[in-house]
Amino acid sequence: MTRIAVDAMSGDSGPRTVVRALASLIKNHPDVDFQLVGDAEILRREIAHSRLKGSTRIEVCPASQVIAMNESPAQALRSKRDSSMHVAINRLRTGAADAVVSAGNTGALMAMGKVFLRTLPGVDRPAIATFLPSQNGRVLMLDLGANVDCHAEHLLQFAVMGSVLFQQVTGTVAPRVGLLNIGSEEIKGNELVKAAGSLLRASHLNFIGNVEGSDIYGGQCDVVVCDGFVGNVALKTSEGLAAMIRNELRHMYSGSLYGRLAYLINRPILQKLRRRLDSRQYNGATLIGLNGIVIKSHGNADRYAFARAVEVAIAEARQGLTAEIAKVIQEGLAQAIRSSA
Amino acid sequence: MTRIAVDAMSGDSGPRTVVRALASLIKNHPDVDFQLVGDAEILRREIAHSRLKGSTRIEVCPASQVIAMNESPAQALRSKRDSSMHVAINRLRTGAADAVVSAGNTGALMAMGKVFLRTLPGVDRPAIATFLPSQNGRVLMLDLGANVDCHAEHLLQFAVMGSVLFQQVTGTVAPRVGLLNIGSEEIKGNELVKAAGSLLRASHLNFIGNVEGSDIYGGQCDVVVCDGFVGNVALKTSEGLAAMIRNELRHMYSGSLYGRLAYLINRPILQKLRRRLDSRQYNGATLIGLNGIVIKSHGNADRYAFARAVEVAIAEARQGLTAEIAKVIQEGLAQAIRSSA
Repeated sequence: MTRIAVDAMSGDSGPRTVVRALASLIKNHPDVDFQLVGDAEILRREIAHSRLKGSTRIEVCPASQVIAMNESPAQALRSKRDSSMHVAINRLRTGAADAVVSAGNTGALMAMGKVFLRTLPGVDRPAIATFLPSQNGRVLMLDLGANVDCHAEHLLQFAVMGSVLFQQVTGTVAPRVGLLNIGSEEIKGNELVKAAGSLLRASHLNFIGNVEGSDIYGGQCDVVVCDGFVGNVALKTSEGLAAMIRNELRHMYSGSLYGRLAYLINRPILQKLRRRLDSRQYNGATLIGLNGIVIKSHGNADRYAFARAVEVAIAEARQGLTAEIAKVIQEGLAQAIRSSA
Repeated sequence: MTRIAVDAMSGDSGPRTVVRALASLIKNHPDVDFQLVGDAEILRREIAHSRLKGSTRIEVCPASQVIAMNESPAQALRSKRDSSMHVAINRLRTGAADAVVSAGNTGALMAMGKVFLRTLPGVDRPAIATFLPSQNGRVLMLDLGANVDCHAEHLLQFAVMGSVLFQQVTGTVAPRVGLLNIGSEEIKGNELVKAAGSLLRASHLNFIGNVEGSDIYGGQCDVVVCDGFVGNVALKTSEGLAAMIRNELRHMYSGSLYGRLAYLINRPILQKLRRRLDSRQYNGATLIGLNGIVIKSHGNADRYAFARAVEVAIAEARQGLTAEIAKVIQEGLAQAIRSSA
């Protein structure tokens, strides 16, 4: 059985959303045990009112505290030893769970991961990685916000980790790695990416060189590497543009009788487009580089979005990703560092 | 009359595209004289084959050289004294033109602007600014790539210049200025934006604080300030996502007979959406902070896109923007620096 520990209390949506997300998944994942971490009374009540009622694959793990979304990681680490996030991470640390999902405070989740799980050997800084849609399928992008001030060596490590994760999840051998930059020529970019470019060119990775923002969705590469500030801006800019387009379509169609009729005829296609633009379905980012599978959900994830994050955790746990990643990352980093030395 | 000098040789599209762009504009702008800078023979031939034939408002200004798109700015400055870009900038410098439009090498254009026009007093570094669509109308974003390694003071100057440009173009008093960051809290971000945040909070600007990538198109603010690396990535990421969406819609509609029929009925709405997603109509970025109006067009602009860039030049020239901006920027920077000192 695959065992997924779910932080049911953190985030903005609350335990009811989490319980309903699991209820929507349990039938399709007969080989998964779910561990719901949080206020036992609340969780048992929610379970009793859900399709999880009576399931033998649901365990409630009590935790008396919750880490607030705006709480400082240091504060969370010091004073919240019985928080749902901490208890969930602990189950991973002790081997009672194969993966953790939390919609909580990213900084606190990363800090707990570093302190209680530790980073994989050879990794200075874990990163946040997520799959995005691209014209030929999917692209993995990292870092998305864990590391806002990076050195070139960190970007090299992100590239190695992302390369492994992409290969593990998609089966693609030697995924094409691109360095996010503002031009394709080697001389382009700021000091950080210029230095990272030389490390990547010297590495064993299938490095295709600089890619621009317009290439993220273009399908030219499989893994896009950037520092956490740039990656976070690129991701959220995309979400904002997609939201604007959805709103404009709604106005265009509701603006006239013609539009409303046209909508009826186009509903199937427009719904396909809406799904494609729906950031909820890409919910579930991997905190890669930690010694354990930790998946971060959007703080305001609804039932549908949270379920997607849990499915990411299930997929990575089934493949026993961490051990494999640890191995390959060590080799990879060793090679990369040798060849770039 | 408003006099627009157009670099007709630089960029990927060539003089024919430029001539046809002007031909599409000349009728609607009876108070504008166009100065076509480049190879006189080629230009006269193109004009003779266009609607510009016989117009008294078209002047050909000979220039024997062209700056290549991949040429280094230093090289361009040294060895191309008779390039179309240089001759066009010179007409602006000598007062023979009120604004310049070029689709050429951005680095060379900025370098020539700095050397031959100089920056406005109080401005360390000119920036590239462009208007983008937002849910409530338009948003001005800068820098988009001129300055990849910035200090906090530069971001403050961008904010002041952007604020003035937005007010001049839209008439909005005290536009809302946002600092592009990865979270709304003051503690969020990298060292650069944290330092810039304190300068902006101390300034006289209508600073609304940090904005995230998702807010660029959200209409929460009028001016988005960031360094040139981040701005360039955000802009190109948006273009890439818009391109992906256009392709997907095309596939969805052409994929089936149903789709093709549905398309016929939806064409008006979908064309409205396509226009809205069409980056060509936002073509024409202002090199702000120079002592003259210099508009940069996309290198691969087609006739439609290039015409939009020329219209930006016309609008800014009509408002005699530079002088006014110079004045307000000096006051603005003075105040900003006083209050942040």
